[in-house]
Amino acid sequence: MVSFRKMNRVLEINEALGYAIVEPGVSWFDLYDAIKASGHNLIASVVDIGWGGVVSNTLDHGLTYMPYSLDQASHCGFEVVLPNGDLLRTGSGAMDYNPAWPLYKRGLGPTSTELFMQSNFGIVTKMGYWLMPKPEIYMPLWLQLWDDSQMPVVVDVLRGLMLDGTINMRPQITNTLCMASSLTARADWYDGPGAIPDAIIDKIAKDLGLGRWLMRFALYGDESVVDHNFAKIKKHFEGMSTATVVGQKHGPEAWETLPNPGERVQIGVPSMDLYKMAGWSGGDQGGHVDFSPVVPMTAKHTQAAQDLFSRMCNEAGFDYLMGILPINARSAAMVNIIPFDTQNEAQVQAAYAHAKRMVATAGRLGYGEYRAHLSFMDLAADQFGFNHHAQRRFNETIKDALDPNGIIAPGKSGIWGTRFREAGFPHQ
Amino acid sequence: MVSFRKMNRVLEINEALGYAIVEPGVSWFDLYDAIKASGHNLIASVVDIGWGGVVSNTLDHGLTYMPYSLDQASHCGFEVVLPNGDLLRTGSGAMDYNPAWPLYKRGLGPTSTELFMQSNFGIVTKMGYWLMPKPEIYMPLWLQLWDDSQMPVVVDVLRGLMLDGTINMRPQITNTLCMASSLTARADWYDGPGAIPDAIIDKIAKDLGLGRWLMRFALYGDESVVDHNFAKIKKHFEGMSTATVVGQKHGPEAWETLPNPGERVQIGVPSMDLYKMAGWSGGDQGGHVDFSPVVPMTAKHTQAAQDLFSRMCNEAGFDYLMGILPINARSAAMVNIIPFDTQNEAQVQAAYAHAKRMVATAGRLGYGEYRAHLSFMDLAADQFGFNHHAQRRFNETIKDALDPNGIIAPGKSGIWGTRFREAGFPHQ
Repeated sequence: MVSFRKMNRVLEINEALGYAIVEPGVSWFDLYDAIKASGHNLIASVVDIGWGGVVSNTLDHGLTYMPYSLDQASHCGFEVVLPNGDLLRTGSGAMDYNPAWPLYKRGLGPTSTELFMQSNFGIVTKMGYWLMPKPEIYMPLWLQLWDDSQMPVVVDVLRGLMLDGTINMRPQITNTLCMASSLTARADWYDGPGAIPDAIIDKIAKDLGLGRWLMRFALYGDESVVDHNFAKIKKHFEGMSTATVVGQKHGPEAWETLPNPGERVQIGVPSMDLYKMAGWSGGDQGGHVDFSPVVPMTAKHTQAAQDLFSRMCNEAGFDYLMGILPINARSAAMVNIIPFDTQNEAQVQAAYAHAKRMVATAGRLGYGEYRAHLSFMDLAADQFGFNHHAQRRFNETIKDALDPNGIIAPGKSGIWGTRFREAGFPHQ
Repeated sequence: MVSFRKMNRVLEINEALGYAIVEPGVSWFDLYDAIKASGHNLIASVVDIGWGGVVSNTLDHGLTYMPYSLDQASHCGFEVVLPNGDLLRTGSGAMDYNPAWPLYKRGLGPTSTELFMQSNFGIVTKMGYWLMPKPEIYMPLWLQLWDDSQMPVVVDVLRGLMLDGTINMRPQITNTLCMASSLTARADWYDGPGAIPDAIIDKIAKDLGLGRWLMRFALYGDESVVDHNFAKIKKHFEGMSTATVVGQKHGPEAWETLPNPGERVQIGVPSMDLYKMAGWSGGDQGGHVDFSPVVPMTAKHTQAAQDLFSRMCNEAGFDYLMGILPINARSAAMVNIIPFDTQNEAQVQAAYAHAKRMVATAGRLGYGEYRAHLSFMDLAADQFGFNHHAQRRFNETIKDALDPNGIIAPGKSGIWGTRFREAGFPHQ
């Protein structure tokens, strides 16, 4: 076990060039505090729950919300301890004293940065992370959709507005139950067996004033450009009869104290206020497991995926909690949140079995997880089977070359290497 | 020798999702023609000289000009033949039938795409390439600067305008001689020995109406946003007393026939019209060799680099032809073009010796080449010496694991592998 608790320094913040260099123990709160203390005119793109790590989230292909986070592209340059103890710097850092290490993602020759993400090829000990200058205006926006069946239309309209740059950040499109889970408990609404009936979902949508789908998103920039883009967005989405788009413009002085934590997150202010989601089933003893495949950002694909996922949830007796998070303008992670009461052993087991069924079923249709829970990582990696698992052969060739004894995180992303495979891993 | 002449098909163009899948023999002209023939509302970011290859340019970290080209990020997903004959698909393509292969750059586990760029680890046989929907307005812009010493100020202002997204593409900032080389021949202006004197450069700047520096750049988008950004850009740059910014807006019907090839290139129309640069010294027998280090996008760094490079050119008796191409908002490639007459053996040898001296001198200061000429690739790679060449050890470990016989492109980016190193390569 390697602990990064004491490697929690923000080593550098550069205002002119907009970057920080962080150690692996730096949390989102730490980075936020360091930027604030520096007084620099910069903001960092953060996650919903501020206690996580900047490096660990980045390494696992985690998603944040501000413009640089599209394509998970905020990082630039790693320092890595290799399994043999050698110290590598990726990208421009491979040159001594190269000031472009946190500025230019490549160097001369192949770039190995992405090889150390979701892998067990080395331990990242430093990372460059790009920071955005504060915009003149931040305008958090909310789209409410009252007709469940129109979600695919939202996706098509959104893709157009992201492809042409009108929306240049990561929206979060959540269904009623996903939203309700961060505000209330399941037992407040329903205590019967199986998935919550549709009529109750309608009631929740109305009682909480949420809608059947809610999209949280934002504009950043000069006021006149924000105004133009807001009018355009409103026009495009409100072509749907049951959709409304609202939002308010805020200058920098207002950001830190916006009452809605979702609005603070999108402008880089981390908190723990969105943590309640885990309590949907089981309250303080609640937990959840996720299944999060990537699908093309089209009405057709999101509809087909939703039909499949919601049907499987119903069959398994679990509520369908969905959060659609675009990776970029072209693809989206569809995060299925499967909540359970950790005190209910049968429910916990059923939840994991349900998640595994979804991984295998979606995999056969060509939808792969963007990251996978430890307990079914092998299954998730198995779905990546092109050319009789060429990727696994490739990854394990690299693993054997860099770490022949299999010291670092054996099994991560299904990469075991020869030594562990010969010892019978993964155990069935 | 592997020829891709017959692998020249554009395999797919998808309008809704904005991508093409291309084979390695597809040229910029081929891709342009295929998009045009498809009738899709899409454009591809291209290079200045249209006969090059889409895949080969991408694999060598080549720079194009439209928004997606920042950070050389237009590609998504490779198919690769490995040295052992195995066929790998990177990113989401590692899953059979995964429709996100050209949409999501990653998959589950480490991403190997960037490992096949500037390397000799495999042969790329298919590539996804993102295409941009046609904007309402394309506005090519030209900044002219008459005071040579103000170039660093331009860089600082430009960085701010790129960091905040006002300018969202790759500008090209060229000095008088670099521009003049694509319009005229050296002998038209000066026939003396050594570098052209500053007074003559001033004369060229005035006679051709170019200025001491010219920046070619552009805005894309909705007309009102373009108007806002143009006014902002003009205000920021024209704070410099000898700078002017001009440009004209054009709708899609006008793009293909814009008279200036530089304006066509930035909206994805390839040509051979900018090829003349190679004739600066030697006319039809002219050639050039480049030295192109990456430096931070600050006045201080670009000034220091320019002072060094221009002094070294003067000392070596070569004209200082400079093109500054931002990689992104934070770093820029400073392309030193060293022209020679291929019929003049002494001049050719002096040009290569000069380039090599620049590589080594800049390397000691932490400036590394973003790509390197074959004849001094080892020297350029040698500069990446962090931790006693940890990157070389790492690359050669991968090389030995994937290609123990060193079959593919031995020596590319300084990667030889054990077999060739033991055989005495690189020869000194």
